[in-house]
Amino acid sequence: MIILGIDPGTRRVGYGLVKKTKRGLALIDAGILKIKSKEDFGALVEVKNQTKALIRKFRPRLVAIEKLYFVRNQKTGLGVAQARGVVILSVMEEGIKIKEFGPNEIKAGITGYGLADKKAVAKMVKLILGRPNLKVIDDASDALAAAILASRTRA
Amino acid sequence: MIILGIDPGTRRVGYGLVKKTKRGLALIDAGILKIKSKEDFGALVEVKNQTKALIRKFRPRLVAIEKLYFVRNQKTGLGVAQARGVVILSVMEEGIKIKEFGPNEIKAGITGYGLADKKAVAKMVKLILGRPNLKVIDDASDALAAAILASRTRA
Repeated sequence: MIILGIDPGTRRVGYGLVKKTKRGLALIDAGILKIKSKEDFGALVEVKNQTKALIRKFRPRLVAIEKLYFVRNQKTGLGVAQARGVVILSVMEEGIKIKEFGPNEIKAGITGYGLADKKAVAKMVKLILGRPNLKVIDDASDALAAAILASRTRA
Repeated sequence: MIILGIDPGTRRVGYGLVKKTKRGLALIDAGILKIKSKEDFGALVEVKNQTKALIRKFRPRLVAIEKLYFVRNQKTGLGVAQARGVVILSVMEEGIKIKEFGPNEIKAGITGYGLADKKAVAKMVKLILGRPNLKVIDDASDALAAAILASRTRA
């Protein structure tokens, strides 16, 4: 069973794919969908197209995404929320189930500590996937963290 | 030339349609797209479907939408931003051009005063459309205001 974690953004969408097998969890892929459009509206169309292409390539059974409760910078945050709406719509249209997790729920689920920093989460993500030397940037690590958490729920 | 104004929301999407002719502006329709889904993800799919149905029915040349700079209640506001992203995507996919206006720009454009309240905007919207006794609720009035403003720009 393949699970896709997504960390939405207006110009960068982090993603991480894990496979759940009897022997445990394995990393399939992780990275960033880079949105090239300089125009905000066109960027939303690209977010949709690239998200759908990713889903069609890997056919995940489940998509995991972090809840968006609060943003520090409203101008940026409202843009991220718009992109998040488009990501959710794209997943729904592909008929894939979505699991949401709160930020602290993800941190606690991955590190045992709900207020852990990004570095601790990234470190544990790599250990859980048996890839301590993996190089992943923050957005992809957050996406992998959500996917790992979703792998523990029933699809 | 038909112009559609949209005021996005998670469960209610306000809309207003005006027609620009040589003799001036005329009201075509205004109302609320009611989103029935109780489930947040399903609601986004409905926002898309209903927005597209509205566009296909009236074939506007231009869509006008208010900019989202700041929200007082983040939980509600981030949901509105998600719906706004889906509305913009839907319009883009239909190949219609979008014009954005800041909230104060709309108020100033309609009433002459950038800090006018909703009541003043609604009153002027009706007068501009030559329908002083029109009954429209707030979301639809805001959508009409954006459409009226867009009617003054080049498409």
